[in-house]
Amino acid sequence: MRRLDEAPGSDTIRQNSDLDEENQSETSHNTSPLIDPIKPCQQTRANVKEVSLSVLSVVWLLKLRSGMEAVGGMEWYGYAALGMLTAILSFLVDLNVTKLQRGSGIPEVRTMLAGIEMPLYLSLTNMFTKFLGVICTLAAGSTVFLGKVGPFVHLSTMIGAYLRNLCRLVNVDDDKDRVGGEMQVVAAAVGVASCFGAPISGVLFSVEVMCSHFALRHYCPCFFSAACGALMFRLFSVLSGDGETLQALFTTNFPTTLPFRPLEILLFALLGLLSGAVSCFFLFCHRWILCFTKTNSVFIKMLTAEKSLYSGMVAFILACLTFPESAGQHMASKLTMKQLLTSLLDGSQWTAPSHNASVQPLMEWSSSGSPVLTLVVFLLMKMWMFILVCTLPLPAGYFMQMFVYGAALGRLLGEGVAYASSAGGTSGRQWPSINPGGYALAGAAAFSGSMTHSVSPALLAVELTGQFSHVVPILLATLLANAVARSGHRPSFYDALSISKRLPHLPSLLKACPSIGSKSVGQLLGVKSVQLQEAAGPEEIRHAVNTCITTQIPVVDSHDLEILLGFVHRSDLLMFLRRSKTEALEEYMHEVCPIYPNSVLLSPHTTILEVHNILSVTGTQTLFVTDRGRLLGLITWSEMKRIIEDLAKEI
Amino acid sequence: MRRLDEAPGSDTIRQNSDLDEENQSETSHNTSPLIDPIKPCQQTRANVKEVSLSVLSVVWLLKLRSGMEAVGGMEWYGYAALGMLTAILSFLVDLNVTKLQRGSGIPEVRTMLAGIEMPLYLSLTNMFTKFLGVICTLAAGSTVFLGKVGPFVHLSTMIGAYLRNLCRLVNVDDDKDRVGGEMQVVAAAVGVASCFGAPISGVLFSVEVMCSHFALRHYCPCFFSAACGALMFRLFSVLSGDGETLQALFTTNFPTTLPFRPLEILLFALLGLLSGAVSCFFLFCHRWILCFTKTNSVFIKMLTAEKSLYSGMVAFILACLTFPESAGQHMASKLTMKQLLTSLLDGSQWTAPSHNASVQPLMEWSSSGSPVLTLVVFLLMKMWMFILVCTLPLPAGYFMQMFVYGAALGRLLGEGVAYASSAGGTSGRQWPSINPGGYALAGAAAFSGSMTHSVSPALLAVELTGQFSHVVPILLATLLANAVARSGHRPSFYDALSISKRLPHLPSLLKACPSIGSKSVGQLLGVKSVQLQEAAGPEEIRHAVNTCITTQIPVVDSHDLEILLGFVHRSDLLMFLRRSKTEALEEYMHEVCPIYPNSVLLSPHTTILEVHNILSVTGTQTLFVTDRGRLLGLITWSEMKRIIEDLAKEI
Repeated sequence: MRRLDEAPGSDTIRQNSDLDEENQSETSHNTSPLIDPIKPCQQTRANVKEVSLSVLSVVWLLKLRSGMEAVGGMEWYGYAALGMLTAILSFLVDLNVTKLQRGSGIPEVRTMLAGIEMPLYLSLTNMFTKFLGVICTLAAGSTVFLGKVGPFVHLSTMIGAYLRNLCRLVNVDDDKDRVGGEMQVVAAAVGVASCFGAPISGVLFSVEVMCSHFALRHYCPCFFSAACGALMFRLFSVLSGDGETLQALFTTNFPTTLPFRPLEILLFALLGLLSGAVSCFFLFCHRWILCFTKTNSVFIKMLTAEKSLYSGMVAFILACLTFPESAGQHMASKLTMKQLLTSLLDGSQWTAPSHNASVQPLMEWSSSGSPVLTLVVFLLMKMWMFILVCTLPLPAGYFMQMFVYGAALGRLLGEGVAYASSAGGTSGRQWPSINPGGYALAGAAAFSGSMTHSVSPALLAVELTGQFSHVVPILLATLLANAVARSGHRPSFYDALSISKRLPHLPSLLKACPSIGSKSVGQLLGVKSVQLQEAAGPEEIRHAVNTCITTQIPVVDSHDLEILLGFVHRSDLLMFLRRSKTEALEEYMHEVCPIYPNSVLLSPHTTILEVHNILSVTGTQTLFVTDRGRLLGLITWSEMKRIIEDLAKEI
Repeated sequence: MRRLDEAPGSDTIRQNSDLDEENQSETSHNTSPLIDPIKPCQQTRANVKEVSLSVLSVVWLLKLRSGMEAVGGMEWYGYAALGMLTAILSFLVDLNVTKLQRGSGIPEVRTMLAGIEMPLYLSLTNMFTKFLGVICTLAAGSTVFLGKVGPFVHLSTMIGAYLRNLCRLVNVDDDKDRVGGEMQVVAAAVGVASCFGAPISGVLFSVEVMCSHFALRHYCPCFFSAACGALMFRLFSVLSGDGETLQALFTTNFPTTLPFRPLEILLFALLGLLSGAVSCFFLFCHRWILCFTKTNSVFIKMLTAEKSLYSGMVAFILACLTFPESAGQHMASKLTMKQLLTSLLDGSQWTAPSHNASVQPLMEWSSSGSPVLTLVVFLLMKMWMFILVCTLPLPAGYFMQMFVYGAALGRLLGEGVAYASSAGGTSGRQWPSINPGGYALAGAAAFSGSMTHSVSPALLAVELTGQFSHVVPILLATLLANAVARSGHRPSFYDALSISKRLPHLPSLLKACPSIGSKSVGQLLGVKSVQLQEAAGPEEIRHAVNTCITTQIPVVDSHDLEILLGFVHRSDLLMFLRRSKTEALEEYMHEVCPIYPNSVLLSPHTTILEVHNILSVTGTQTLFVTDRGRLLGLITWSEMKRIIEDLAKEI
C-alpha cells in the first residue's frame, strides 16, 4: 500500500512488487474485484501532476468565485474547505482501514475491548478519538458489520463547527446566526455525500433524514460543498493509484440495451413490498431490544459499569460465529462490505450452469455448495447479528449494513426469478435475460429506504453504481417499501435510536406519540423569566443582567400590568450600566436604550409543533408568549430543548 | 405512425411497410437517430399484453397499498392518477406533434395567427384548448423554438385541481386544506417530471423553482406520483413500438472506462463560468425586451389589439430566416429539438478527419461546410430569436430551448478542445480522447441551470441521458454557472417573467427589490376588518356575517378597548343566527359559540417576508395583527395577495 507522501518516482517499482499480493484488488476503490487485479498504472506520475494542478486551480477558481459574490463571500471558502476536509478524512479512513486489515487480528479485539464512547462535544481531541475509533471499527468491519456513514456525519459536523468559528473570526460584521445555522446543515449533507463519493444523493439523503422543513437557500451551499468533497475524494483515488479515473464507486456491468422486461416491474413492486415487510419486522425487533436494554436491570448494569466487557463479549461471540474456517464459510464472511456489495450486484446469474465462479468474491458465495443456500444463511444470521450489534456502545454506522442486507434480499429474489425463468425458458423461451443484479440494487435501495423512511436511497443506488437503466423500478420498489414501513406511523430506525437516547428531536418523538405535538405551550412554560419595566433604573437593570442569560430581555410597561412593549439587547444594557457607573447620571432605561419591537408573538394556546416550526423557519432567537398583551414567558432554543426533553421523559 | 387503438395483429405487416420511410427514426423516443432505423419489433404483440397486464397490476398494487395506509388513503389514488394522466397527456402531445409535423405547414401558420392566450382558469375547456395549443406550437417547434415544460406544469396543475376536488368529494371528513395544498405541489412536480420521463430530477427541479421552503412531507407524494407518471410514459413508448424497452430518453454512447482526464475538470469549470456569463447577457437582454414591450406605446398597442397579427409577423420572419433551403442550412434548422439534442450529445469528434457524418442529423451540421461554423451561426442567431420569441403571447415552454442552447455552447468548447488536443496530439499524445459530447451535456446543464437559478438541471442532464460518468464535472459546471448568474442578486428567467406579468410572487419581487421584504405589515394593512365583541347580539352578528367573507372572525372584549380574545368560526355564527331566528331567544354570542384561541399573533412591526414564511409554514388561514393586545387587523392569503400586488406595482 502506498502512502500519500511518497515520491512519485518510486511508484512503478512498488506497484510491480505489490502485484504478487493476492488480496490487493480487495482494497481498490474503483476497480471491480471481479476482474483481474492488474492495474494499468503507468501514468501515475502524470496523474500526480495533473491532480495537484487541478487542486490548485480549483482553489484559484473559488477565489474568483468568492470575489464575484459581493455579499457573504467568506462562508463559501468555508463550504469548500468543509467539503475538501471531509473528503480527505473519508479517504484517510478508507486508506487506514486497508492497512489495518492487512495486519493481524489484534486491532479488532482491541477496538472491542476499548469500548469507545460517542463524544458529545465538538472538540478537536474528540474528533481525533472518533476518527481513530471509526478506523478501528471499520477495520473490524466484517465481524461487527458496521459502516461509516453515521460517524462521518458527526465528524463532518465537528469540522463544520470549527470552520464556522473560523468564518466568524474573519468577518466579524456578518450575520452570525445565519452562517452558523447554514454551516451545520451543509456539514451534515457533506458528511453523507463524501462517504460514498455521491454528491447528489448524499445531499438529498441528509435533507430527508435530518430536516422536516428545508430552506432552499441551503440548496446551493450543500451541493457546492458536496461537489468539492466528491471531487477531492475521487482525485485522491486517482492520486493513490487506486482508480485510473473518475468513475462510479461500484461499477456494474448490467446490459443497457435491454435492462428489463416491462412485466418485471411487477416483480420489482413485489420486492418493494417484501423489503418493506422485512424492514417492519426488523424495526420491531430493533425497538424491542432498545427498550429491553433500557429496562432490564442486568443490561443497564452491564452497559454502565462493564461497557468494555460487554463489547468484548459480543465481539467475541460474533467473531466465533463468523470465523471463515468454521460457520463463517456458510455466510461469505470473508468478504468486506465493499466486496459483498460488488459481488451481490454482479450482473450474471449465479445459479446458471454456465456461470463461472472462479473470481474470489463469487467463489466465496458458492464455497458451501449452493450460493442460494449461502444467501439464505447470510440473511438469517445477519438479521439477529445486526440487531445485537445495535446494542453496542460504539461509533456506529448502520446505513451501509442495511444497504448490503437489502442487496442480499433482492439478490435472493432475483436468483429465484432467474432460476424459474431459465427452467421455463427451455420450453417457451419467454424470459430471455433476467438480471439478478438489478434486483439486488432495487432491494438495497428499498430496504435501506424503508428502514430510514426515506426515498433518496433509490437515487443513491443509482449514483453509487452509475447504473441509470433501472431508475424507475428502483424508485417504485423504494416507494412501495416506504409505504409499507410508514403505515401505522411507526418510528424509523433513526427515530427509534433518537427516542431511545432521549434526544431532544421533536419529529421523532411525534412518531412515537403524535399527541405530543398538540400540547399547548402555555402548559409547558417554565419559570417566568426576568422582565424589565420601561422606566427601569440602574439597579433593576443590574439585577436583570446578572440573573438572565438570554441576549434579548423583554420590556413591559409596568410590573403591575405587564403589557409587553418589546425587548432590549443585553449589550445595550451593559453599555448603559457602564455609562451610569462612570458618569453617575440618574437616567432610565427607555431614555437611553432602544426598545426593539417584537415581530411574532405566541399565545399560550400555540402548540409545541407550531412553535418548533416558527423557530426553525423565522430564524429568530427568542419568541415571546403573551395573553391579551400581557407577557407570560419566552421561548428560546434552549427552552425548547428543555421542553422536548421533558416530553421525551414522559414517553 | 401507429395508433393506440389498432389491433395488435396488424403490427408486423405495417411495421415492415413503414421501414421505407426515411425520417421514421426521427420520431422514435428511445432509439438514437444516429443508428440505423431498423427496429427489432417482432415482440410487439407480447409487449401489448405485458404492458396491459402491468398497468392492471400496478392499479391492483395501489389498491393494496392504499388499503394498508389507514390514514388519508384516498389522496394516494389521486397522486397515482395525477401521475398517470399527466404521462398520458405528455405522450399524446408527442404523438400528435409527430403526426402534424408529417402534414403540411398549415398548422404552424394557423397556430401563430390564432395567438392562443394563456388560460387563467383551471377549467376543462381551457385545459383542452391549452392542450391543442401546445400540440400546435410544438408541431411548429423548429421554427419558433418552443418547448413543453412550462405549459405542461400548467396542464398538470389543472388536472391536479380536478383530482383534488374529486378527492374532497369522496372523503368529506378529511382535512380539506391539507390535501388541496399537497395536490398542487405534487401536480407542479409531476408536470415537470412527466415531460422528460425523468422522475427524480423533475421533482427536484420543480421544488427548486417553485418553492422557497419545502415541507418534506410532500417528498413522498411527489416521488410517488412522478414515478407513476414516468412508468406510464415509458410503458406507452413500449406499447407504441417506439422503444423496445424502458431506457433513458436520450441514449448516449460515451466511453465509461475513461470518461475524462482529471485536468479536464478545469475546462468544465471554465465552461461553467462561460455559461454563467452568457446567461447573464441573455437575462439582461430578456429583462430589457420585457421592459420594452411594457413601456413602448407601439408595442403595447400591438400586443393588446393586434395580437394575432404580431404573432403571425414574428412567426413569418422566423420561418423565412430558418427556412432550410435558404439561411436555415447554416444553422441546422431542419432538425427537431430532439434531433438537435441527440446530435449535440454525440460522443465522437465532429472535426476529426476520420469522422463519419453520413447519418442524417450529423450531416445537417456539416451541410454548409464546417460544423463549427454552423455551431457559431446557430448560437448567434438563436440568441436574438429566442429573445424575440419571449415576446410572443403563446403557451410557451422555454426550458428545453435553454437546454439545447447550452448544449450547443458546450459542444463548441468541446470541439475546440478536441481540435486543440488532436493538433497537439500528433507531437506529444498527451490527450488520448476528448469527448465533446460530455462538454455539450455539461454546457446544457450549466446554461439552463444558470438561466433558472437552479442546480437540478445537472441531475436532469444525467437522468435524461443515463450518463453517470460525468456527474461531478456537470455538477461543478452548473454550480459555477449559478454562482456567476446569482451574483448581484439579479432575477432569474422565471423571476423576470413573473415580475413583468406583475404576478403576486414575493420571492421574485424580492430579487428585483430586496428592500420590499423588510417592509412592516403595519404600514401595509388594509381597511380594518369586521370584529365582534364578546357579548355580541344577533344584530351585530348578522351584520358581521354579511360584510365579512373570511371563515374566522376575530372577537374582542369590547369595541372600546379592542383587546383580542380569539376568533369564532363563521359556520358557528350562522348556526347561532338560525337558532335565534327559530327559537327567538335573547342570547349573546359568547354563551353559545365557542371562541377559539389564537395561536400565533403578529405585531405591526413584523416584516412582510416573515408573515409570508409563517403563512406558508404553519398552514393557518388567518393571522391576527395586534399591538399590546389590541387588534389592528388580520392577514389571510387573499390579503397577502393584495399586499404583494400593491408592492409589485411600485417596482
